[in-house]
Order: sequence, then C-alpha cells, then structure tokens
Amino acid sequence: MNMAKQIPSWKDKVLFTPGPLTTSPTVKQAMLRDLGSRDIEFIGLIREIRRKLVELGQVSPDEYTAVLLQGSGTFGLEAVVASTVPPDGKLLIIINGAYGKRLARIASVLGIDTATLEYAEDTMPDLKEIDDLLKADSKITNVSVVHCETTTGIINPIREIGDIVAKSGAKYFVDAMSSFGAMPINLAECGIDYIISSANKCIEGVPGFSFVLCRLDCLKETAGYARSVSLDLLDQYHGFEKNGQFRFTPPTHTLAAFRQALAELETEGGVAGRAERYQRNYETLIDGMRKMGFKEYLRPEDQGYIITSFLYPDDPNFSFERFYESLNQKDYVIYPGKVSDADCFRIGNIGRIFEADVRALLAAIAETISEMGVKLK
Amino acid sequence: MNMAKQIPSWKDKVLFTPGPLTTSPTVKQAMLRDLGSRDIEFIGLIREIRRKLVELGQVSPDEYTAVLLQGSGTFGLEAVVASTVPPDGKLLIIINGAYGKRLARIASVLGIDTATLEYAEDTMPDLKEIDDLLKADSKITNVSVVHCETTTGIINPIREIGDIVAKSGAKYFVDAMSSFGAMPINLAECGIDYIISSANKCIEGVPGFSFVLCRLDCLKETAGYARSVSLDLLDQYHGFEKNGQFRFTPPTHTLAAFRQALAELETEGGVAGRAERYQRNYETLIDGMRKMGFKEYLRPEDQGYIITSFLYPDDPNFSFERFYESLNQKDYVIYPGKVSDADCFRIGNIGRIFEADVRALLAAIAETISEMGVKLK
Repeated sequence: MNMAKQIPSWKDKVLFTPGPLTTSPTVKQAMLRDLGSRDIEFIGLIREIRRKLVELGQVSPDEYTAVLLQGSGTFGLEAVVASTVPPDGKLLIIINGAYGKRLARIASVLGIDTATLEYAEDTMPDLKEIDDLLKADSKITNVSVVHCETTTGIINPIREIGDIVAKSGAKYFVDAMSSFGAMPINLAECGIDYIISSANKCIEGVPGFSFVLCRLDCLKETAGYARSVSLDLLDQYHGFEKNGQFRFTPPTHTLAAFRQALAELETEGGVAGRAERYQRNYETLIDGMRKMGFKEYLRPEDQGYIITSFLYPDDPNFSFERFYESLNQKDYVIYPGKVSDADCFRIGNIGRIFEADVRALLAAIAETISEMGVKLK
Repeated sequence: MNMAKQIPSWKDKVLFTPGPLTTSPTVKQAMLRDLGSRDIEFIGLIREIRRKLVELGQVSPDEYTAVLLQGSGTFGLEAVVASTVPPDGKLLIIINGAYGKRLARIASVLGIDTATLEYAEDTMPDLKEIDDLLKADSKITNVSVVHCETTTGIINPIREIGDIVAKSGAKYFVDAMSSFGAMPINLAECGIDYIISSANKCIEGVPGFSFVLCRLDCLKETAGYARSVSLDLLDQYHGFEKNGQFRFTPPTHTLAAFRQALAELETEGGVAGRAERYQRNYETLIDGMRKMGFKEYLRPEDQGYIITSFLYPDDPNFSFERFYESLNQKDYVIYPGKVSDADCFRIGNIGRIFEADVRALLAAIAETISEMGVKLK
C-alpha cells in the first residue's frame, strides 16, 4: 500500500501553546497501528513506558512507581487529590495562578478540608509563611504546589517547599504538568511523594492520558481513601501490578505514540538535551520580542523557559483578537492570557518546535504589528 | 515527503475483541495531524461530531445534546452516575453481567444510595419485577441498565424497561457501550434520558474518549449534583456551549480519527449498513463454530450480533491459554470469558473486520483445535 497517495497534503499550524503541542511526524506515525489492549505486545509497551518515566524522575523503581491514567492532566490531578488525601485529612494548596485555583476547586467539590496560601500571579510563594502554617495547623496531611504555573510561566521553588513539607511530615504533591521532561527534577531530593504530568507536554506525545509518579510507601498507605473508581490511583496501580494492564480501556494509539516520544527524548539527550532546545527557543523569543518593544509580565528571575506571558502593547490600535487571528492565518497559533490582573497573551516554547520556528513566528508578529499600526516604543 | 518509506511494514493482528478494535487505515491516518485544541478548526470538528452523534440517536438537537468526555467508557459511566443522581437520590441498577456490577461498585464508592435487581448472566431482566420495585420504592430517582452486556453478549430489552421507567417518573440511563452505532436506537422512543458509548466501539474510532447523549431538560436539572470536577457532565456541557471547546485538554488526534470514523459509518450506510456487516460476521462465525462443534453460552434468542461467548470444549486436551496463544501467533486476538459460572471465551464481531476475516479466524481455530488434539463432537 502506498501510503503517500492516501495521505492528504496539508501544512499544520505551528503550536506555540501550552499543549496539545506540535509533535514529530514519527510520533504521530506510531499511531498507525491497532494494538489489542490486553495483548502481550501492548503489556510490554506499558511496562517500558512506566519504567522510563521512573527513570526520568531520577529515582529507583524500588521506591517509586509510575501510574498512567486515562484522560487529560486535570483527571490525573483530581485522581491524586481524590485518592491520596485521607478521609479526615486536610490539604494545603499553595496558589499563585489558575492551576492552583483549579486544584482548590477540585478539593472543594470532593468535600476535602483545605487550607490555601494564595499569592499574586507574579509572586513567589513565601516559604516562611508555608513553614509557619504547617507548624500552626497540625491537621494538614497533604501539601500541593504547581511547579511551572502555566498561567504565567512562573517557576515555583519545589525543592525549598519540599524541604519544609518533609519536616512537617505531610505528603507532598507537585503538579509538574508543563515542566516534567523539560526541567530536571530529582523526586527524592525534592521530597516529592506524588508528581504529575501528561502525555502531551514536554515528553512531546499526543494527548490522551496523564501519569503520576508515586512514592510507593506513600501510595500503599492510601487504601480506602479513593473517592472515585475511575480516578482511583491505588487501584490503577494494583491493576498494572496484577497483570500489567490498564483496568479500563486505555488509549492504545496514544500510548504507542508516547513510547516513540520517549525514544525521541532519549535521542535528543534526555531532559538536559530537551531543556537546551527549549531554552534556546525561549531566549530567541524573548530577545526578538524585547527588540520589538514587547514587555514580559513576570520579572526575568521568576520566569521559566516553558511559556511566557507578554503584556498587551499600550497602544489603542492593538486588539488581541486581530493579533491572534492574523498570526493564525499565517499558521502560527499563540495563546490568550490567563492572568487575572493584567492583559496578557502567552507564547509557549515547548513541543517539536525549533529556533527557526521561533524566528519565523517573530517575523510574523513584526508583520502583524505593522499591519495593525501598533507602535511599541 | 514520501511517507511510505517512513512507515515500517507490519501486519497488525486482527482484533476479535470487545475493543479497542481493528480500525480502518484512513481512520488512523486522520491522526497524522496536530490540531490546536482551542483553534477554530478543532472547534468545528467538535461541533460536527456532537451534531452527528445526536443524529445517530435519531433525535432532535432541540431535545438532546452530545457531551464528549476524556477517558475510557468507564469514565463516562462514572460521570453519568456522579453527575445525574441527586444528592438524596437513589439509583436502581439492573444487573446481569460484569458491567452492571461495575456500575454498582461506582455508585457505592460515590456514596450513592442504590437498589439492585440482579439476574444470572444468561437471563433477561424480569420486567414485572422492575415495575413492582419502582412502584414499591418511591425513593428511586434513577434507573440504569446495560444494553449489550459485553460479559456474555446478551441484549437487554431497553425499550420495554424504558416504558416502565417512564411511568415511574425516574430518569433512565442506558449503557450502550458496545451497541451504539451497530444497533438502531431511537432515544426518545425508548424513553432514554442518558445513553453512553465510547469512541472505540461500533463507530470504529480509536480509544480516548466516551460520549453521553443527554436529554437536555434532564441534564439542565442536575446543577449542583456533580461529585467530581473532571467527571462533571453538566459543566462539560456548559463548556461546549460557552465556546465550543473542551474544558480540559481533549485527545485531539483521537477526535480527528473519530470524525473520519463517523464519515466512514455514513459511507457504509449508517447504522443499518454497519449492522448488516456485523450480522454477517456473526452468522458466519456462529455457523462455522457450530459446525466444528462449539456451543454458545447463551440461548440464541438472547444473543446479539456484537460479541459471542462460547463454552470451553468438554475435552481435557483443551487449554484456553494454549488456544489463545496459538491463535495469537497466527495474528488473531480473541478474548477471555468473563462469565462467573461457566468456562467461556469470547469472540467479537465488531470493528473493521469482514466476513473474510471471520472465515480466516475459523480456519485458524480449526487448525488450532486439531493441533491440540481436542475432540468436539
């Protein structure tokens, strides 16, 4: 069969978003197969993925395990909250963006007792305040924080927070949705008990499942905690351990793509190699945007290389809708802002995009700004 | 780019399972694109899928809506239970197989008050008993039944049960996971308020999401019921209605494949055309298996054309493990049984398989039985 004839020709837009992202042709081609979800080949594929994810966490499979879960990243987040906070437990949620807030909403719907420490979206969490609260409120059993708050792109100090949480004896849960695979994280050194990310972020797979790396002795203590069947983390783990399979139908094609994505991450030099490319994308972007006169929302020292929030230009000729639409017609997809107290748009540096793509985006932005008659300086 | 060169050559096993199934090459090829999940093209794709699903339910979009949900079919089932049973409601679960039992487990974990009517796995639900219970227990607000119990392949009388439920005033929820798209169902005529299926069953898409067709006036009454954020059916609906988008990252590639699958369903003559092919597969299978001396678990009048449970041959030379493994090596994947009180294996007739595939499977079974020295008559 000549597949070239059967595949229509198109040029996909380049996605400068927080995900789903642009993926490699070979990752997508890995989906051209139908695997039986309980077949031995697929069981081997699951085993390989779980093993490699634990390696990416720089920890031993004797101490940590990887649990894959159908659905988007939010499903994985809810699974951790619903499955690991004890029935009479209390969850401290550290918030400086929309994803921290979403976690608080999840806990509230699940009827879980919570405490929150909320900071402005351009502000780092106050470590002393966290320490003080954990000392003052002995009911807190679990603590959560977002690593890269995709709202702004701010990088929270997960290691420093981990040190504080460890002293308190609480369990520590990190939402590393948009950082895992692109920023080196040693779970044990950061004192992390649960970390979550999803298939379609910096591993550069396609969307369809999330994964949670869990410290085994913590996970095994959670029997009876789950407030859901589909989102029961421990039961999902038991399923994998029992027969190597998902309890319920897995997205087989997405998982085949993910195995390929993990292989391509290795080829790129692992997390270090990928971080280098993303950093180059980021520096090229920031440099070009600054030269045009755009300003970032965050202070540079708080800003990661994953995604950047830019302030709207201070010119009445600027309209985000027109800006977005014009870039879209040029085949570049950027992202609206999510900051509550400032008008911003966002540009992501992750996915299968390279410095040349960023330069092309910058040229398209310059052209668009000029077409709109926006003055930046 | 010559894709033929880049795609390794392989022959996938043919899947005679309840799903994930064998899909067409063109359905899989639709996944070779990266779409932005908030991009206008993808929003159009979601709209088209939702519209066509309502059409497949033979109802008007003024009365029914389609809600797509990330995750496997079980996630969709849990979403309906968690989102549509009132806080003080009571769910009657009609059970004659493993999937009915799973629903009871979900309700129990969610802390929902339930009543169950349980029948043997080869036995139809007793309509009079359902009617009597609904009259006797006025606390029952919701009733659920599985259409095709994939445990055995039995087809439950959803229309007759619907008539009874309608009289009681309870809401009626049908799990049509493995029948929707292959058996004509008119939701309004069956009195169905919620029906659920998933992407990788008889529409012949790839796995990654489920969908629920909901009667709009019912759905809109459920504000405040949801016991989950990820699995909140009404909020997911509001998301689609607000901006045409998923609330949380959707499996974009899976959805592109599903649009193609829906187009191919139309080309085949819709549900009627597909039903005809599956029926032919079923008749070819049953005929061949009977000629070899295999016996079905169910009475023929209770048996659907979706999936068939066969009893193990009564010969000590038969070992299911060897039988399965031998067929697997010949590239045919069948399914273990799930019946609690009899030793069975299952063969599915759904997915992109044709009479010729069934004949080839029959030949492989004959060969395997002969190799094993199993006597059937």
